[in-house]
Amino acid sequence: MQRFALIGAGFIGSVHARNLAANPDVDFALVYDVDSERSESLARTHGAQPARDLEEVFNPARIDAVFIASSTNTHAANLRHAADAGIAALVEKPIDMDLAQARDTAAHVDRSGIRAMVNFNRRFDRDHAELKRLVDAGDLGPLSLLQLTSRGPALPPLEYLKVSGGQMRDQTVHFFDLARWICGADPREVFVAGSALSDPRVADLGDVDTSAATLIFDSGTLAQIDSVRHTGYGYDERIEALGADGMAESGRMSSGNVTLFRGAYSRADGLHGNWFERVQPTYAAALKGFVDAIENDTEVPVPLRDGLKAQAIAEAATRSLASGRSERVDYNA
Amino acid sequence: MQRFALIGAGFIGSVHARNLAANPDVDFALVYDVDSERSESLARTHGAQPARDLEEVFNPARIDAVFIASSTNTHAANLRHAADAGIAALVEKPIDMDLAQARDTAAHVDRSGIRAMVNFNRRFDRDHAELKRLVDAGDLGPLSLLQLTSRGPALPPLEYLKVSGGQMRDQTVHFFDLARWICGADPREVFVAGSALSDPRVADLGDVDTSAATLIFDSGTLAQIDSVRHTGYGYDERIEALGADGMAESGRMSSGNVTLFRGAYSRADGLHGNWFERVQPTYAAALKGFVDAIENDTEVPVPLRDGLKAQAIAEAATRSLASGRSERVDYNA
Amino acid sequence: MQRFALIGAGFIGSVHARNLAANPDVDFALVYDVDSERSESLARTHGAQPARDLEEVFNPARIDAVFIASSTNTHAANLRHAADAGIAALVEKPIDMDLAQARDTAAHVDRSGIRAMVNFNRRFDRDHAELKRLVDAGDLGPLSLLQLTSRGPALPPLEYLKVSGGQMRDQTVHFFDLARWICGADPREVFVAGSALSDPRVADLGDVDTSAATLIFDSGTLAQIDSVRHTGYGYDERIEALGADGMAESGRMSSGNVTLFRGAYSRADGLHGNWFERVQPTYAAALKGFVDAIENDTEVPVPLRDGLKAQAIAEAATRSLASGRSERVDYNA
Amino acid sequence: MQRFALIGAGFIGSVHARNLAANPDVDFALVYDVDSERSESLARTHGAQPARDLEEVFNPARIDAVFIASSTNTHAANLRHAADAGIAALVEKPIDMDLAQARDTAAHVDRSGIRAMVNFNRRFDRDHAELKRLVDAGDLGPLSLLQLTSRGPALPPLEYLKVSGGQMRDQTVHFFDLARWICGADPREVFVAGSALSDPRVADLGDVDTSAATLIFDSGTLAQIDSVRHTGYGYDERIEALGADGMAESGRMSSGNVTLFRGAYSRADGLHGNWFERVQPTYAAALKGFVDAIENDTEVPVPLRDGLKAQAIAEAATRSLASGRSERVDYNA
Repeated sequence: MQRFALIGAGFIGSVHARNLAANPDVDFALVYDVDSERSESLARTHGAQPARDLEEVFNPARIDAVFIASSTNTHAANLRHAADAGIAALVEKPIDMDLAQARDTAAHVDRSGIRAMVNFNRRFDRDHAELKRLVDAGDLGPLSLLQLTSRGPALPPLEYLKVSGGQMRDQTVHFFDLARWICGADPREVFVAGSALSDPRVADLGDVDTSAATLIFDSGTLAQIDSVRHTGYGYDERIEALGADGMAESGRMSSGNVTLFRGAYSRADGLHGNWFERVQPTYAAALKGFVDAIENDTEVPVPLRDGLKAQAIAEAATRSLASGRSERVDYNA
Repeated sequence: MQRFALIGAGFIGSVHARNLAANPDVDFALVYDVDSERSESLARTHGAQPARDLEEVFNPARIDAVFIASSTNTHAANLRHAADAGIAALVEKPIDMDLAQARDTAAHVDRSGIRAMVNFNRRFDRDHAELKRLVDAGDLGPLSLLQLTSRGPALPPLEYLKVSGGQMRDQTVHFFDLARWICGADPREVFVAGSALSDPRVADLGDVDTSAATLIFDSGTLAQIDSVRHTGYGYDERIEALGADGMAESGRMSSGNVTLFRGAYSRADGLHGNWFERVQPTYAAALKGFVDAIENDTEVPVPLRDGLKAQAIAEAATRSLASGRSERVDYNA
Repeated sequence: MQRFALIGAGFIGSVHARNLAANPDVDFALVYDVDSERSESLARTHGAQPARDLEEVFNPARIDAVFIASSTNTHAANLRHAADAGIAALVEKPIDMDLAQARDTAAHVDRSGIRAMVNFNRRFDRDHAELKRLVDAGDLGPLSLLQLTSRGPALPPLEYLKVSGGQMRDQTVHFFDLARWICGADPREVFVAGSALSDPRVADLGDVDTSAATLIFDSGTLAQIDSVRHTGYGYDERIEALGADGMAESGRMSSGNVTLFRGAYSRADGLHGNWFERVQPTYAAALKGFVDAIENDTEVPVPLRDGLKAQAIAEAATRSLASGRSERVDYNA
Repeated sequence: MQRFALIGAGFIGSVHARNLAANPDVDFALVYDVDSERSESLARTHGAQPARDLEEVFNPARIDAVFIASSTNTHAANLRHAADAGIAALVEKPIDMDLAQARDTAAHVDRSGIRAMVNFNRRFDRDHAELKRLVDAGDLGPLSLLQLTSRGPALPPLEYLKVSGGQMRDQTVHFFDLARWICGADPREVFVAGSALSDPRVADLGDVDTSAATLIFDSGTLAQIDSVRHTGYGYDERIEALGADGMAESGRMSSGNVTLFRGAYSRADGLHGNWFERVQPTYAAALKGFVDAIENDTEVPVPLRDGLKAQAIAEAATRSLASGRSERVDYNA
């Protein structure tokens, strides 16, 4: 049984709170938020206690593990705090917006010896994980090509986009991680073409909302990722992996199984209306992965270095958007 | 907020306990089971209290509603007890194995004026309910034909079959209810052919495990129901509704969305391995339907008379299995 | 190379003419029709000769095989003529509307020793045949249940219905044959419920347009067939076969593979607009089956006795519609 | 009625011969091949005449249109011959392997005023054409992204690859054309990453067998094309078009509709075993498009300039494979 504190009681924090409360190996003890009303309310809902301050949270006599779901600019400090206190940490991506800072933080955490995991929740999607299992089992033969689709229904608020770091660092980074994870290798180069099509203010921010990325691996394996902020048809996330012996697909997921046949057409339930409906179960599964690693004394499923690598790809991808050429990924800078 | 007691702490009782604990309009107060260890354990898990006896349960000062999930032979007595105490009741089907007894009980309950609902949970399946919505909205035109598929992966234990009342009363009765509900009408006649194919002991019990039922409505609408106890490929439940203007389908549900293409075939995730995986979300939805009716002072979604009607069809169906002819359904005996 | 004459130059005759012209083992020599303009026109299109009369057709010096696609009331006479001339015959169903007459004709043909085949073309559907192959290969284990769907888009003309013999003899008979063929056994009993829903004149004819048939085999295997004349969504023909070890489906066939995703729904190409689009390839395949049997000196794939058996089931089914009970099929009367 | 000569009696020539014979507006008069045995045999099969030499073919007194399906290095000369004789021409792609030569030839043909069409048959695929119709009808809103999939089951013979011009000019060029056609615009730039994975000799030829191309349009629309020579699961060709209001897909086409459900998986018919099974109907449709344009005195559906543009993209794509950067397409050089 692991005693958990949750830092951050916003939307995603409340999702994590529900999963902490439901996980049989978790004693959900504390909630901290800069807004004490929010932490009190969320704590009350789940029978946890609100924490007055972070000192209360980072107290190893009371807490074994912390779930860092606070705002991005606090991730690194909270991670360092956990490392110094000897408390395990599960942190939302990214470790830090600045890759150099993120690397320093991860190095500090590594030296502490605590268990620390980046919450790349999509790896815990049942279908993506089954696809990965087929790849690892050799059912496809050596991989030649991946196709990843990342499409959201509607442009996030401009205020969010402004601080998001851009489409590569905010949205596509999840799929850079998935591509690495499925291939079991680090892409050498990345090319990205991008456009701002849904709103002229996206271009004003220097950002894109529609992009096509190509990853090149040393083995010759290629990966294509399309990332779209606005679809008009819901949330569409899929992966195809092609090898010498066959192809596997973690397919489009629909919101229901009802089809209406009339005249020359059939009409079926479409995709989920938003990302959260689609990926919701992955959060509990990711938490379980983290908790199980602690309980079983094994490595966490997504160590911080994996977060750094996905971030390094996002940096090269952002450079490629500007340069119009394939850019080498620098994993060590 | 409704204060609930749960009677019955077996497998299905524990499912209901989880949903009672999660429903925001429910104060899950008491659990009763003839086995006090079971009630104590289940109560503890969800922060409820174990009840020493049924007097504690049927106490309107403490309890507003009772969920009757005890063994079938106690349903009627518990319902009468609730009626006499003025406590709302949600009861697993059937009201009583004996239809005459069930009718007496329902009449007694009706006179008391309490809210009482039979837990025909499949009506609360998201896809079946959407199909019903399309029918009611007139998207199909007047109904001509229903096809209902009810297939379980494996024969239940012989001990269970012995006391189940036979396939019509135990399994197909849910689909008799669905057919009535979707058509908005009561079938006049029913024909059933059945076989015992999976185990010779099924025939020894005078029961069948594979059956084909035809329902005939006054409007001329027909319904076909196939009921199978043993499939070899998981749990398969579907409904098709055909009208003058089109057809709608609440389709086969698979356990995942991964497909592997190799050589001349593709291999996809199959159906759910058991009924519970498939219908699990319907239990919370049915409970919500009951609680909302109390909170909003409206009629419960599945009144006891609907349970009686489905039972009456199951009786005629059981007669048809023996007679080899279409049998009239007697709704008033 | 088999020298063929075609009798009947109507719609279905012209389909057969095209297939006769395209089959590399067929020398398409003669066309006969009571309307000489039709036979001349059809013969010209395919480089065949029009026949002045049936004497020219049934001349073994010139013709090896005849395709009887003339009106139903001439089938028996043409079959007898072929038998007497020693010419192989492929005949559209039924052999004769009157089952006793059909039996006499088949017996006469059998005594002659000619090859004669009833054109149950649906057996030659690629998907149905693959389903049959899976059944025969034992992939499903012993069969427990068949589901057959036979639904046409629109009521045929009343003039046609008047002489059709009713839905069982005209439409469902194809699926009685498919059920027998897939099971490799003859059903013992049949129950049918039917309604006239699409047009009051169907009832005036004593016919039905919507029916639910149940076949009972000695093995305990059951088959359900739904037959509908008017769907509102095109032509829908499917078969499901369930056994102890699994289930196989010859699924719904759509007219295209385009899907449009917008908002909360997807819209896909629906089913074929009419039966002919759906089953067209089966005619060439059935002809090939007949020609190959002659060329390879093997039994024809659908001997006349199979036509008689399907007809016998249709007779019992027609009786069941009136009696409201399961009727024994009389294969020997 | 157009009098046709076919030049080239190899595999694809024999496909065209069959379609020429079946098209009701075509009088299939002549076949020419450098191998006179081949032309005689193919002519005999379809009731045409073998031509002794090309003079006989390019005789406007006898021939209205010529189908050029001879070896690639003869296309340009045959096109010029047709132009000089005033005979309409349908030519397999490319006009000439050398783009400058192809441009000179097209200019010569244009000056002659004859109707000339490049046989980009995939535009005539029923599903791709329906997708294009939806795009043009505005059902998707302004296009943001295309995904095109071009995957063949097995590496073509090395001898073929040697003279093919490389994957971009041989395989992907069809999809460059489809992307242009669907977008109704010319891509400005193209980036391609490629690998030789299926056979080391592909790399020895300086060619690739697995590639990921990105097209960039002035509007900001992007297109991704994956091209694979060896899949292990048959022939896979698909298109997805995404716009501001929705997405449409010309989906994966399977070789049948049979599914087997056993245990935890279902197994369905996979994709077609080879490209020809998949695209076969497009050849007759393309021919019809050409013939209809002549008969109706309208522009041919795929003028030579469209062939030149697709070729120009393939040239830029081939440069990009070497340069590792996005290359401008030069449409006018």
